[in-house]
Amino acid sequence: MAHFADRLLDAIDSTRSYLAVGLDPDPAAMPPQLLGEPATLADAADAAERFCRAIVDGVAGIVPAVKPQSAFFEQFGAAGIAALQRLIAHARQAGLLVIEDAKRGDIGTTMEAYATALLGRAPLAGGDAPVHDADATTLSPYLGADSLTPMVDAAARHGKGLFVLVRTSNPGSGDLQLLQAADGRRLFEHVAVMVAQLGADDLGERGFSSVGAVTGLTFPEDAATLRTLMPHSLFLVPGLGPQGGRSADFPLFLNEDGQGAIAAAARAIASGWRTQPEGDDPVERVRRGAQATAEQANKELRQGLLETGRWRW
Amino acid sequence: MAHFADRLLDAIDSTRSYLAVGLDPDPAAMPPQLLGEPATLADAADAAERFCRAIVDGVAGIVPAVKPQSAFFEQFGAAGIAALQRLIAHARQAGLLVIEDAKRGDIGTTMEAYATALLGRAPLAGGDAPVHDADATTLSPYLGADSLTPMVDAAARHGKGLFVLVRTSNPGSGDLQLLQAADGRRLFEHVAVMVAQLGADDLGERGFSSVGAVTGLTFPEDAATLRTLMPHSLFLVPGLGPQGGRSADFPLFLNEDGQGAIAAAARAIASGWRTQPEGDDPVERVRRGAQATAEQANKELRQGLLETGRWRW
Repeated sequence: MAHFADRLLDAIDSTRSYLAVGLDPDPAAMPPQLLGEPATLADAADAAERFCRAIVDGVAGIVPAVKPQSAFFEQFGAAGIAALQRLIAHARQAGLLVIEDAKRGDIGTTMEAYATALLGRAPLAGGDAPVHDADATTLSPYLGADSLTPMVDAAARHGKGLFVLVRTSNPGSGDLQLLQAADGRRLFEHVAVMVAQLGADDLGERGFSSVGAVTGLTFPEDAATLRTLMPHSLFLVPGLGPQGGRSADFPLFLNEDGQGAIAAAARAIASGWRTQPEGDDPVERVRRGAQATAEQANKELRQGLLETGRWRW
Repeated sequence: MAHFADRLLDAIDSTRSYLAVGLDPDPAAMPPQLLGEPATLADAADAAERFCRAIVDGVAGIVPAVKPQSAFFEQFGAAGIAALQRLIAHARQAGLLVIEDAKRGDIGTTMEAYATALLGRAPLAGGDAPVHDADATTLSPYLGADSLTPMVDAAARHGKGLFVLVRTSNPGSGDLQLLQAADGRRLFEHVAVMVAQLGADDLGERGFSSVGAVTGLTFPEDAATLRTLMPHSLFLVPGLGPQGGRSADFPLFLNEDGQGAIAAAARAIASGWRTQPEGDDPVERVRRGAQATAEQANKELRQGLLETGRWRW
C-alpha cells in the first residue's frame, strides 16, 4: 500500500477539504427514532452502526477522512467491535481514510498486539487476516519512545499512519503537557522532539512522515512551536466547534505550502441532523445533516486558508 | 458492591499472596498443541480463551487477582472481546479480582464510554447491563486530571478500582517520566500528586483509595518517594521476572504495615507449562504450570516480606 502520508495528502487535495469527521456514536447524540429502545448490547451496537454509516454516506467525497472513536464502540462489548469493523470497511469502500482514535500506549509484545488489532493483520493458518484494518490510529506517549517503536514499525510495514498525543485540546491538557523541564522546554516540546525522531526514517514521496501528532486547535499559540519541532509530521487537529477551537486558527498548523494538517470535528457533524427537518427516515436525516454541516465546516476552513494566503488550489 | 481497595486487601489477606497473574494470550506463548492451527480470528480467540481459563483455574484460590491484557484479546477482533468478556466472568466466578490492563486515557464523554466498557454498565431499555465488568483497570495520565475524572467517578459509583500509570517498568519509561520540572520534581512525581488528589475522596474502610498507581518493580530506588507522595494509593507493581524486577525489592512498595501493593507477573506464569511434563492434555499442562509457577512466585514474595519484617500473618 502507498505511504499513509501521501494517501492522506492526496485525499486532502482531491476533496479540497482539511476535515476529518469524527464518528462518536454516543446514544445521547442520536435521533431517538434511530436509537429506538435497545434491549441488548447488540441492539445498541446496531443503532451505533446505522448512525455512523449515515454520517459516512453524508460526508464521502467531500472530506478526506473519518475518525471513529474506539471507546464509543467498546462500550457495546464484542457487538460494538463487530460494528466498528464493518463500519471501517464501509468507510474505506466509500473512499475515505479511516483514523481510529484509540490513544493506545503499552510496551513490547503488548504494543505489537495493538498494532495487529488496529492497523495490521493477524497471522492465521491459511494466511494473515485484517482485524480493524484502519488506515491510522492515535497513540499516547507517556511510557516513552520504546513503547511507541513497535507501532511505528508496524505502520511503516503496512503503509499506515500514527498520530501521537503531543498537545491535546482539553482544558486540563496543560496539567502535565505544560510542565517546564530544566532545559526550558515544556513536556509537550520534548514529546514533539520524540515524535520527529521516531518518524524521521519513514517519509513519503511528499515529504511527510507516517508518524504524526495530535495538536489541539484550542491552543493556537503553540502551533508555530509544534510546526518547527515537527516539520515532517502530519498534525491531527481536534477541538473545532464545541470545544472552542476556531476555523480561523487552523492555518497556523499548516506549513508555508498550506500542507501538513487535518482538522477533526465530531459533535458538530454528528448532531447535524438537528438542523434538518424531521422526516420519515431518521437515517436519511442524519446523512443530510452530516453532509450539510461538513460542507459548512469545509467552507469555514477554506475561508481561513484564503485569508492567510495558504489556499493551494 | 464493597469498595475496591477493601476487596483487594481482603483478597490479599485471605490468600496470603501479593500476586496478580497476567493473562496475556500471545499465540507465541501457548503450547502448540493447544493453539492448533487457527483458520479464523474466532479460532484464535477460542485458543486464547482456553489458554487463559487454564491459567485462571491453576491460580484460583492461591492469588488474589488476575490481570488480563486487553491488547492480546483485541488482536482477535470482536471474537477476542467476546472471549475476554467470558474469561472475566469465569475469573470472578472463581473468586479472583480482575484488573483489565487497558491503559486508556481520553476526555469527557469518551472517557465515560471507556468507563462503561471496562467497569460500568450500559444503559438499555430493560435495565442496565454489564459490558467487560472488570473490577479495576489501568489508565494513562498524559491528557491531565480532567481526563481521568470521569473514570474516577465511575469507579467510585460502581465499587471498582483504577491504577494510573506513574512510573512504568519499561527501560524507556524515563524518557518522559524522569524529566525534571522547574520545581525540582520529576514528571512522575507530579503525576503521583495528581493521583493522590484524585483519590482522596474515595477511601475504603481499610484506608486505601479506589485510585491507585502503576509503579514498576524495576525502579526500586523510586519506591519510597512514590509511597510518600501517595500514602493512600494501592500500587500495581509490574516487572517481576523477565523484565528484571526482583521479589526482594517488592516490600519497598508496601507501607510499614506491609500493605498497599500487589505485584504483577505474566510471562513467568503463562509459560509455566514449559516446566511440566508433556501429557495428553495441553490445557491441564497449562493449569499445572501456572499453579506451580504462581506458588513459586508467592514463596519468593513471602521470603522478601519475612526478611524485611513486613510479613503480616
